[in-house]
Amino acid sequence: MLGRLNHVALAVPDLAAATVAYRDTLGARLSEPRALPEHGVTVVFVDVGNTKIELLEPLGDASPIAAFLEKNPSGGMHHVCYEVDDILAARDHLKASGARVLGDGNPKIGAHGKPVLFLHPKDFFGTLVELEQA
Amino acid sequence: MLGRLNHVALAVPDLAAATVAYRDTLGARLSEPRALPEHGVTVVFVDVGNTKIELLEPLGDASPIAAFLEKNPSGGMHHVCYEVDDILAARDHLKASGARVLGDGNPKIGAHGKPVLFLHPKDFFGTLVELEQA
Repeated sequence: MLGRLNHVALAVPDLAAATVAYRDTLGARLSEPRALPEHGVTVVFVDVGNTKIELLEPLGDASPIAAFLEKNPSGGMHHVCYEVDDILAARDHLKASGARVLGDGNPKIGAHGKPVLFLHPKDFFGTLVELEQA
Repeated sequence: MLGRLNHVALAVPDLAAATVAYRDTLGARLSEPRALPEHGVTVVFVDVGNTKIELLEPLGDASPIAAFLEKNPSGGMHHVCYEVDDILAARDHLKASGARVLGDGNPKIGAHGKPVLFLHPKDFFGTLVELEQA
Protein backbone atom coordinates (compact mmCIF):
# COMPACT_ATOMS: atom_id res chain seq x y z
CA MET A 1 0.00 0.00 0.00
CA LEU A 2 2.61 2.54 1.11
CA GLY A 3 4.23 4.11 -1.96
CA ARG A 4 7.10 6.54 -2.36
CA LEU A 5 7.88 9.41 -0.03
CA ASN A 6 6.21 12.42 -1.64
CA HIS A 7 7.66 14.98 0.76
CA VAL A 8 8.86 15.83 4.23
CA ALA A 9 7.27 18.98 5.66
CA LEU A 10 9.27 21.23 7.96
CA ALA A 11 7.47 24.04 9.79
CA VAL A 12 9.45 27.27 10.04
CA PRO A 13 8.59 30.56 11.77
CA ASP A 14 10.35 32.68 9.12
CA LEU A 15 10.32 31.44 5.54
CA ALA A 16 12.65 34.18 4.28
CA ALA A 17 15.32 33.22 6.82
CA ALA A 18 14.81 29.49 6.11
CA THR A 19 15.20 30.19 2.39
CA VAL A 20 18.59 31.78 3.04
CA ALA A 21 19.69 28.84 5.23
CA TYR A 22 18.64 26.18 2.72
CA ARG A 23 19.78 28.03 -0.41
CA ASP A 24 23.00 29.67 0.73
CA THR A 25 24.17 27.60 3.70
CA LEU A 26 23.07 24.14 2.49
CA GLY A 27 23.35 24.94 -1.22
CA ALA A 28 19.92 23.53 -2.13
CA ARG A 29 17.70 24.31 -5.11
CA LEU A 30 14.55 26.11 -3.97
CA SER A 31 11.29 27.18 -5.59
CA GLU A 32 9.84 30.63 -5.24
CA PRO A 33 7.52 30.97 -2.20
CA ARG A 34 3.92 30.09 -3.00
CA ALA A 35 1.04 31.31 -0.84
CA LEU A 36 -1.71 28.71 -0.38
CA PRO A 37 -4.34 30.64 1.59
CA GLU A 38 -6.84 27.78 1.36
CA HIS A 39 -4.30 25.59 3.19
CA GLY A 40 -3.13 28.26 5.63
CA VAL A 41 0.54 28.09 4.63
CA THR A 42 3.14 29.66 2.41
CA VAL A 43 5.43 26.99 1.00
CA VAL A 44 8.91 26.82 -0.51
CA PHE A 45 9.85 23.53 -2.18
CA VAL A 46 13.39 22.24 -1.77
CA ASP A 47 14.24 19.94 -4.69
CA VAL A 48 16.60 17.21 -3.45
CA GLY A 49 16.29 15.08 -6.58
CA ASN A 50 14.54 11.97 -5.28
CA THR A 51 11.84 13.73 -3.26
CA LYS A 52 10.86 17.17 -1.94
CA ILE A 53 11.32 19.01 1.31
CA GLU A 54 8.55 21.52 1.96
CA LEU A 55 9.30 24.53 4.13
CA LEU A 56 5.99 25.73 5.57
CA GLU A 57 5.27 29.12 7.15
CA PRO A 58 1.85 29.89 8.66
CA LEU A 59 -0.48 32.04 6.55
CA GLY A 60 -3.64 33.64 7.93
CA ASP A 61 -5.46 33.23 11.23
CA ALA A 62 -6.26 29.52 11.13
CA SER A 63 -3.07 27.94 9.90
CA PRO A 64 -2.88 24.17 10.53
CA ILE A 65 0.74 24.62 11.63
CA ALA A 66 0.13 27.48 14.09
CA ALA A 67 -0.29 25.21 17.14
CA PHE A 68 2.85 23.26 16.22
CA LEU A 69 4.88 26.48 16.06
CA GLU A 70 3.47 27.63 19.38
CA LYS A 71 4.86 24.42 20.92
CA ASN A 72 8.05 24.57 18.81
CA PRO A 73 8.79 28.27 18.28
CA SER A 74 12.04 27.59 16.38
CA GLY A 75 10.25 25.24 13.98
CA GLY A 76 10.67 21.53 13.44
CA MET A 77 9.79 18.43 11.48
CA HIS A 78 6.03 18.53 10.96
CA HIS A 79 4.94 15.52 8.87
CA VAL A 80 5.90 12.99 6.22
CA CYS A 81 3.73 12.34 3.16
CA TYR A 82 3.61 8.99 1.38
CA GLU A 83 1.92 8.26 -1.93
CA VAL A 84 -0.80 5.65 -2.29
CA ASP A 85 -2.51 4.43 -5.46
CA ASP A 86 -6.04 4.42 -4.08
CA ILE A 87 -6.71 6.65 -1.11
CA LEU A 88 -10.17 5.27 -0.36
CA ALA A 89 -8.88 1.69 -0.30
CA ALA A 90 -5.99 2.87 1.90
CA ARG A 91 -8.41 4.65 4.24
CA ASP A 92 -10.63 1.58 4.55
CA HIS A 93 -7.65 -0.69 5.25
CA LEU A 94 -6.29 1.74 7.85
CA LYS A 95 -9.61 2.07 9.66
CA ALA A 96 -10.07 -1.72 9.65
CA SER A 97 -6.58 -1.97 11.20
CA GLY A 98 -7.58 0.41 14.00
CA ALA A 99 -5.66 3.49 12.79
CA ARG A 100 -7.37 6.83 13.24
CA VAL A 101 -7.89 9.08 10.24
CA LEU A 102 -8.02 12.77 11.22
CA GLY A 103 -11.03 14.96 10.46
CA ASP A 104 -14.22 13.37 9.16
CA GLY A 105 -12.37 10.48 7.55
CA ASN A 106 -12.92 11.69 4.01
CA PRO A 107 -10.02 12.74 1.77
CA LYS A 108 -9.59 16.47 1.19
CA ILE A 109 -7.85 18.13 -1.72
CA GLY A 110 -4.31 18.82 -0.52
CA ALA A 111 -1.73 21.44 -1.37
CA HIS A 112 -0.79 19.61 -4.60
CA GLY A 113 -4.39 19.41 -5.87
CA LYS A 114 -4.70 15.70 -5.04
CA PRO A 115 -6.77 13.84 -2.43
CA VAL A 116 -5.02 13.55 0.94
CA LEU A 117 -5.65 12.14 4.40
CA PHE A 118 -3.80 12.65 7.68
CA LEU A 119 -3.36 9.84 10.22
CA HIS A 120 -3.24 10.30 13.98
CA PRO A 121 0.38 10.64 15.16
CA LYS A 122 -0.40 8.55 18.26
CA ASP A 123 -0.96 5.54 15.99
CA PHE A 124 2.43 6.04 14.31
CA PHE A 125 4.77 6.69 17.24
CA GLY A 126 4.57 10.46 17.30
CA THR A 127 4.92 11.01 13.56
CA LEU A 128 2.13 12.79 11.70
CA VAL A 129 1.57 10.81 8.47
CA GLU A 130 -0.08 12.24 5.36
CA LEU A 131 -1.20 9.99 2.52
CA GLU A 132 -1.63 11.46 -0.95
CA GLN A 133 -3.23 9.71 -3.91
CA ALA A 134 -0.47 9.62 -6.53
CA MET B 1 25.94 20.94 -2.42
CA LEU B 2 22.82 19.32 -0.96
CA GLY B 3 22.15 16.00 -2.70
CA ARG B 4 19.31 13.51 -2.45
CA LEU B 5 17.44 12.64 0.71
CA ASN B 6 19.16 9.51 2.01
CA HIS B 7 16.68 8.83 4.81
CA VAL B 8 14.27 10.18 7.36
CA ALA B 9 14.88 8.82 10.86
CA LEU B 10 11.95 8.26 13.21
CA ALA B 11 12.65 7.43 16.85
CA VAL B 12 10.31 4.85 18.36
CA PRO B 13 10.14 3.48 21.90
CA ASP B 14 9.13 -0.02 20.76
CA LEU B 15 10.52 -1.28 17.47
CA ALA B 16 8.45 -4.47 17.48
CA ALA B 17 5.21 -2.48 17.78
CA ALA B 18 6.40 0.03 15.14
CA THR B 19 7.20 -2.86 12.80
CA VAL B 20 3.63 -4.11 13.10
CA ALA B 21 2.23 -0.61 12.43
CA TYR B 22 4.39 0.02 9.37
CA ARG B 23 4.17 -3.50 7.91
CA ASP B 24 0.57 -4.46 8.64
CA THR B 25 -1.27 -1.17 9.06
CA LEU B 26 0.60 0.91 6.45
CA GLY B 27 1.50 -2.05 4.21
CA ALA B 28 5.18 -1.08 3.85
CA ARG B 29 8.17 -3.28 3.00
CA LEU B 30 10.50 -3.58 5.99
CA SER B 31 13.95 -5.00 6.62
CA GLU B 32 14.74 -7.28 9.52
CA PRO B 33 15.85 -5.37 12.65
CA ARG B 34 19.56 -4.73 12.78
CA ALA B 35 21.39 -4.00 16.04
CA LEU B 36 24.09 -1.34 15.69
CA PRO B 37 25.65 -1.31 19.18
CA GLU B 38 28.41 1.09 18.10
CA HIS B 39 25.68 3.60 17.16
CA GLY B 40 23.42 2.91 20.14
CA VAL B 41 20.37 1.96 18.08
CA THR B 42 18.51 -0.96 16.59
CA VAL B 43 17.17 -0.04 13.16
CA VAL B 44 14.47 -1.27 10.80
CA PHE B 45 14.59 0.13 7.26
CA VAL B 46 11.30 0.94 5.54
CA ASP B 47 11.79 0.82 1.78
CA VAL B 48 9.51 3.39 0.15
CA GLY B 49 11.14 3.16 -3.28
CA ASN B 50 12.71 6.58 -3.70
CA THR B 51 14.32 6.79 -0.23
CA LYS B 52 14.35 5.06 3.15
CA ILE B 53 12.59 5.60 6.43
CA GLU B 54 14.64 4.39 9.39
CA LEU B 55 12.82 3.32 12.53
CA LEU B 56 15.26 3.69 15.43
CA GLU B 57 14.97 2.14 18.89
CA PRO B 58 17.56 2.91 21.60
CA LEU B 59 20.17 0.21 22.23
CA GLY B 60 22.46 0.23 25.26
CA ASP B 61 23.05 2.80 27.98
CA ALA B 62 24.33 5.71 25.89
CA SER B 63 21.95 5.78 22.95
CA PRO B 64 22.03 9.07 20.99
CA ILE B 65 18.21 8.95 20.80
CA ALA B 66 17.60 8.35 24.54
CA ALA B 67 17.24 12.05 25.41
CA PHE B 68 14.87 12.59 22.48
CA LEU B 69 12.63 9.74 23.67
CA GLU B 70 12.67 11.11 27.23
CA LYS B 71 11.27 14.36 25.83
CA ASN B 72 9.00 12.56 23.35
CA PRO B 73 8.02 9.27 25.02
CA SER B 74 5.72 8.21 22.16
CA GLY B 75 8.50 8.76 19.63
CA GLY B 76 8.73 11.24 16.78
CA MET B 77 10.61 12.55 13.79
CA HIS B 78 14.29 12.61 14.77
CA HIS B 79 16.37 13.79 11.79
CA VAL B 80 16.71 13.99 8.02
CA CYS B 81 19.84 12.86 6.20
CA TYR B 82 20.99 14.36 2.89
CA GLU B 83 23.78 13.10 0.69
CA VAL B 84 26.76 15.25 -0.27
CA ASP B 85 29.59 14.43 -2.68
CA ASP B 86 32.41 15.72 -0.51
CA ILE B 87 31.74 15.92 3.21
CA LEU B 88 34.89 17.89 4.06
CA ALA B 89 34.11 20.53 1.44
CA ALA B 90 30.52 20.62 2.73
CA ARG B 91 31.75 20.98 6.32
CA ASP B 92 34.08 23.83 5.41
CA HIS B 93 31.35 25.66 3.48
CA LEU B 94 28.90 25.23 6.36
CA LYS B 95 31.33 26.50 8.96
CA ALA B 96 32.24 29.48 6.78
CA SER B 97 28.49 30.21 6.51
CA GLY B 98 28.17 30.23 10.31
CA ALA B 99 26.42 26.86 10.71
CA ARG B 100 27.44 24.75 13.70
CA VAL B 101 28.67 21.21 13.15
CA LEU B 102 28.00 18.97 16.17
CA GLY B 103 30.80 17.18 18.02
CA ASP B 104 34.41 18.00 17.21
CA GLY B 105 33.60 19.01 13.64
CA ASN B 106 35.17 15.95 12.08
CA PRO B 107 33.11 13.40 10.16
CA LYS B 108 32.44 10.09 11.90
CA ILE B 109 31.59 6.78 10.28
CA GLY B 110 27.80 6.55 10.35
CA ALA B 111 25.36 3.68 10.49
CA HIS B 112 25.82 2.97 6.76
CA GLY B 113 29.63 2.81 6.98
CA LYS B 114 30.08 6.22 5.35
CA PRO B 115 31.36 9.53 6.76
CA VAL B 116 28.62 11.62 8.36
CA LEU B 117 28.19 14.94 10.15
CA PHE B 118 25.29 16.35 12.15
CA LEU B 119 24.35 20.05 12.05
CA HIS B 120 22.91 22.00 14.95
CA PRO B 121 19.09 22.04 14.77
CA LYS B 122 19.02 25.67 15.92
CA ASP B 123 20.69 26.67 12.64
CA PHE B 124 18.03 24.81 10.60
CA PHE B 125 14.79 25.84 12.29
CA GLY B 126 14.48 22.99 14.75
CA THR B 127 15.37 20.18 12.31
CA LEU B 128 18.38 18.00 13.06
CA VAL B 129 20.24 17.61 9.74
CA GLU B 130 22.66 14.77 8.99
CA LEU B 131 24.96 14.90 5.97
CA GLU B 132 26.36 11.65 4.56
CA GLN B 133 29.07 11.39 1.94
CA ALA B 134 27.39 9.49 -0.90
